[in-house]
Amino acid sequence: MKSVINTIYEAKLAELKEKVTTLGTPVRLTIVTVGDDPASKVYVRNKIRLFDELGLECNHLTLDEAGTTQTDLDTLADNADHPILFQLPLPNGLVAPDLPAAIDVDGFGSETLGQLVLGQNAILPCTVQATIDIISAHCGEFNFAGLKVAVVGRSNIVGKPLAIELINRQSTVSSFNSRSDLAAVSWAQFDVIVVATGSHGILDNSQFIEGQLIIDVGINRVDGKLVGDIKHHDGILSPAAITPVPGGVGRLTCLHVLGNAIKLVESSTK
Amino acid sequence: MKSVINTIYEAKLAELKEKVTTLGTPVRLTIVTVGDDPASKVYVRNKIRLFDELGLECNHLTLDEAGTTQTDLDTLADNADHPILFQLPLPNGLVAPDLPAAIDVDGFGSETLGQLVLGQNAILPCTVQATIDIISAHCGEFNFAGLKVAVVGRSNIVGKPLAIELINRQSTVSSFNSRSDLAAVSWAQFDVIVVATGSHGILDNSQFIEGQLIIDVGINRVDGKLVGDIKHHDGILSPAAITPVPGGVGRLTCLHVLGNAIKLVESSTK
Repeated sequence: MKSVINTIYEAKLAELKEKVTTLGTPVRLTIVTVGDDPASKVYVRNKIRLFDELGLECNHLTLDEAGTTQTDLDTLADNADHPILFQLPLPNGLVAPDLPAAIDVDGFGSETLGQLVLGQNAILPCTVQATIDIISAHCGEFNFAGLKVAVVGRSNIVGKPLAIELINRQSTVSSFNSRSDLAAVSWAQFDVIVVATGSHGILDNSQFIEGQLIIDVGINRVDGKLVGDIKHHDGILSPAAITPVPGGVGRLTCLHVLGNAIKLVESSTK
Repeated sequence: MKSVINTIYEAKLAELKEKVTTLGTPVRLTIVTVGDDPASKVYVRNKIRLFDELGLECNHLTLDEAGTTQTDLDTLADNADHPILFQLPLPNGLVAPDLPAAIDVDGFGSETLGQLVLGQNAILPCTVQATIDIISAHCGEFNFAGLKVAVVGRSNIVGKPLAIELINRQSTVSSFNSRSDLAAVSWAQFDVIVVATGSHGILDNSQFIEGQLIIDVGINRVDGKLVGDIKHHDGILSPAAITPVPGGVGRLTCLHVLGNAIKLVESSTK
């Protein structure tokens, strides 16, 4: 799977570079972080590096955990005139402002999600877009209709919007969550299984069969090591294609922050 | 099932009457129809009758099919200061304006649907709310988590928002559509099957088993008779509980136009 991810990454990066060149309007992004979550630091650094690589402006606003209020975040959102994102998780019960679609580069806001339900929008949450890319590359861009896809996890930023996008594409979608009886599910019935629960070991690599595509969205730290949601048993190789963690979905997700920022600029200049 | 529907109807009606009495603010609704679709006439008459029964104001605006433009509809929406709905279907390629949540009594607009995805909103599309009521009555109000529900059909007004609401309630949801291989599905695995395709005979009553709840949302006219999406074979009674058409979901749906209008008034006066 690693080479498939690399191929997608390179193709997508080339496409984005080409777009930036022909766009004519500058692409800018503001990233807001509060406090110093170690995982957030890595994610933000990757985003900034990518914008730098393309010669684009990415402002990183770092706010102290102690003094920052919800009003501070809301004011930043109200005054933003270009794509902005509030890096999750936020400390102290702070919540990311519900951004208008025009600047919502993460695709987490209610306006973007409402357009998604109606099948109207160009912007998908970055992890959802990365997952769709991997399915496209593996199963064929035009083969979503009738594809049997399991989505394990129902978060607002991955599981739920992914299920909606797949329904839009006429896939047959089964949505599972922490209250589902996962042990009783016959996983062999699915063409694609996407696991996005943030819980390592919720499924394991012995449960899948040849021909299946398994997309592991989870990123968990276990004994100091980064691992996905799927447990890989020592010495047992799965006959299914399973995306790696790290270097799988996460690698592509970062690209889509840029991809979404470009889309927002494109639609604002139409 | 008929008596279950009646019980839900009477309980809901009593609850709404009580709410109207204690609300203190008048509940008003404007219904816009264009042309003279015969089914729409029946639906609109039922809504007006219900508002009349409770002494509430329901304005029915009937527009000619010939002279009405999209701009006319958009202007009506822009000027509305209380709950309004555009009765579907609309002729001549006209589309219902994308209403702001504050007046979106049908719950079809992108703002309402975005709030739905985030699990924030009080308003559900009326048919979705009616379906949830029937599941509550049959399976228990607090038993949605882990419930295995199939949703057949993926329309923007029933299938998709219903799937989202069920995911919000932690059900295990499988969404099927016209590109799904329905003949290969083992329907016995589901606790509840909701059929909302608008295609009579897409499933039939011999496919279900005892203990299942089958909700038939479809309303089709076949040989001059109103029938659901589920074909009932002559002389074969299904062991499953199947909602009737007419007199099932549709009977409750009408109540929720009123219920949603009340909710909108409640939230505007908060």
